[in-house]
Amino acid sequence: MTETRSRISEDLHTSIERELASRFADRTKAAAGYGQEFATLWTHASDHVLGGKLVRPILLVDAYDALRETADAGHASGGAEEPARSTVIELAAAIEMLHFSFLLHDDVIDGDVFRRRRTNLIGTLRDEHPENGAESGAALHWGRTGGILMGDLLLAATHQIFARADLPTATRLRLLDLLDHTVTESVAGEQADVGLSDGVIAPDLHRILAMTAHKTATYTFELPLRAAAILAGASAATESAMSSAGRHLGLAFQLQDDLLSSFGDHEAHGKDPHSDLREGKQTAIIAYARMTSAWPSIETSFGDPALGTADALRVRDLLIDCGAEQFARNLVTEQVAALYEILAASAIPRPVRHVLLDMATGLEGRTS
Amino acid sequence: MTETRSRISEDLHTSIERELASRFADRTKAAAGYGQEFATLWTHASDHVLGGKLVRPILLVDAYDALRETADAGHASGGAEEPARSTVIELAAAIEMLHFSFLLHDDVIDGDVFRRRRTNLIGTLRDEHPENGAESGAALHWGRTGGILMGDLLLAATHQIFARADLPTATRLRLLDLLDHTVTESVAGEQADVGLSDGVIAPDLHRILAMTAHKTATYTFELPLRAAAILAGASAATESAMSSAGRHLGLAFQLQDDLLSSFGDHEAHGKDPHSDLREGKQTAIIAYARMTSAWPSIETSFGDPALGTADALRVRDLLIDCGAEQFARNLVTEQVAALYEILAASAIPRPVRHVLLDMATGLEGRTS
Repeated sequence: MTETRSRISEDLHTSIERELASRFADRTKAAAGYGQEFATLWTHASDHVLGGKLVRPILLVDAYDALRETADAGHASGGAEEPARSTVIELAAAIEMLHFSFLLHDDVIDGDVFRRRRTNLIGTLRDEHPENGAESGAALHWGRTGGILMGDLLLAATHQIFARADLPTATRLRLLDLLDHTVTESVAGEQADVGLSDGVIAPDLHRILAMTAHKTATYTFELPLRAAAILAGASAATESAMSSAGRHLGLAFQLQDDLLSSFGDHEAHGKDPHSDLREGKQTAIIAYARMTSAWPSIETSFGDPALGTADALRVRDLLIDCGAEQFARNLVTEQVAALYEILAASAIPRPVRHVLLDMATGLEGRTS
Repeated sequence: MTETRSRISEDLHTSIERELASRFADRTKAAAGYGQEFATLWTHASDHVLGGKLVRPILLVDAYDALRETADAGHASGGAEEPARSTVIELAAAIEMLHFSFLLHDDVIDGDVFRRRRTNLIGTLRDEHPENGAESGAALHWGRTGGILMGDLLLAATHQIFARADLPTATRLRLLDLLDHTVTESVAGEQADVGLSDGVIAPDLHRILAMTAHKTATYTFELPLRAAAILAGASAATESAMSSAGRHLGLAFQLQDDLLSSFGDHEAHGKDPHSDLREGKQTAIIAYARMTSAWPSIETSFGDPALGTADALRVRDLLIDCGAEQFARNLVTEQVAALYEILAASAIPRPVRHVLLDMATGLEGRTS
């Protein structure tokens, strides 16, 4: 990332953060009319949403700006009217709200009260009522209820922003189609993830990779990139190429995430080093290991919530020795290669290619 | 209800049911591309949604037709273009989807696997995987996950229908405002209900009545009545009067529901006769009893999940003797009186008054 681009991104981060803060402040104020507990729910949600890296909204605006740059240079936009900057920022903020909505329901489903080394919204709400006993059913129930309900409120708020975007009707409808596709695919991915863990879906590699792409890659990469293309009035060919690029990038990121969880530097990424093993998370790494002679020795520890460190390290070594780690690394390489191929051949304009290459480069040195 | 009106309602029921069936069929078909489990989730959801009484959508269309009748007779619509019949039916179907979305998340939050004497969606999904043991954690987890995710999908689908409604921009934005208000208020009511049960919110009568109005009355009565006013191009005064009428009607219905649960004919309404007592549900009946000398004798049994029939009947008699039942009946009467006052004085046109009076009359003889 060049210095200029980095400074622009800082300004952009501030703009999106300000938009999010203002939306949450309005909602918190309105919530007070329904009682202190409802206002508190909004205040805590705001605390948890703000301060993040805003990867998704920044990707949207960066890609949009790069596409507009091309359009202005080449007069390729077909004379489409440029949306107001505020509209682009609003939609960018909306996809951060969608992201948080998905995280909340994922945490409720998984029974998690932590995320990234700190208490999540569910845990925060639970701990606020020590009179019910932090470990008692009622306090946790209150926390989980808040997680479900805030997820609903943010899912609704995302739709409201898309529905009201000040854009020509055809553009608005294309964005609504994209949102519909994104919600459907992310929910299908979440269901598949749970089905794989609960033993309802057989854990073969094909299903696991599809789940990975649907659950996270779609809304993290495809959504912002396609939204940028639609807002910039790009051609259908460009939108489609950006969609494919987003899928490869997203799958590479998620596979990398699985590798970091199992073999990475836990000080840097801040996750419980063996949580994937303890939870019995079905990943590409596990799908490969399952097909090797090492599996019987791994299976005995897989999904054991009480797994100790010594056993976890034994399994980690087995996963390396049986080739599962290398297999997952090769998958990442394949996805990045497919991304490069699209960038070399396709309808994606040069400035956008830079945005995507920046992301792919970040992937290689990623430790968290 | 006159015979003609009853026949019209039958046709209307069929139209709305057909619209819902077609939407669910489309979604189920598209879901198959994400695996059998996702398609099955849609199929089961469809089974649970279809076949209902469609109270809310029918109220919307009845009120809309009554308003249009007035407008056509008096040319009072200000020349507003009439929306297509299909648009009105689509929006009516959307509020049934919203209703089902709220029910699903309510059932997840309350841990319920039954609704109205049959297994709900959560129970159906749980029972489909006996290999995990119907009572085991994994099968129930799968069911609850399906409940959360289908609730999300239907909340999103409701917003998509409102966002795409083929209406003038100003009308569409008013409907989106109404939907926003409805979602906020219903979620605030749900949170308050849980807060009252979990002991986070002190159970005074004022909070309990506000919770009752927000959780159910808003989306069941205010939403369809105000949507009808907006679609018919009615004046702000009419919309506001219909909103107040809806609140009184809604509160009366919900209080009546509490009375039926505690003192009604359980064969007719099909609920567990003492579930409100066992769950420790905070109702107006309980708020009143809490202020009487009978409370210490009631409190020992209140919220006891293992409460036997003899004890439950003893509490039921105490609630009658201490005047709590009569107090709640008086509240219903007050709400109905307030409704009549609005109908007598206000901007609500005569044909709409008939629709509302039909509902209020139904309330008096209601056993289920």
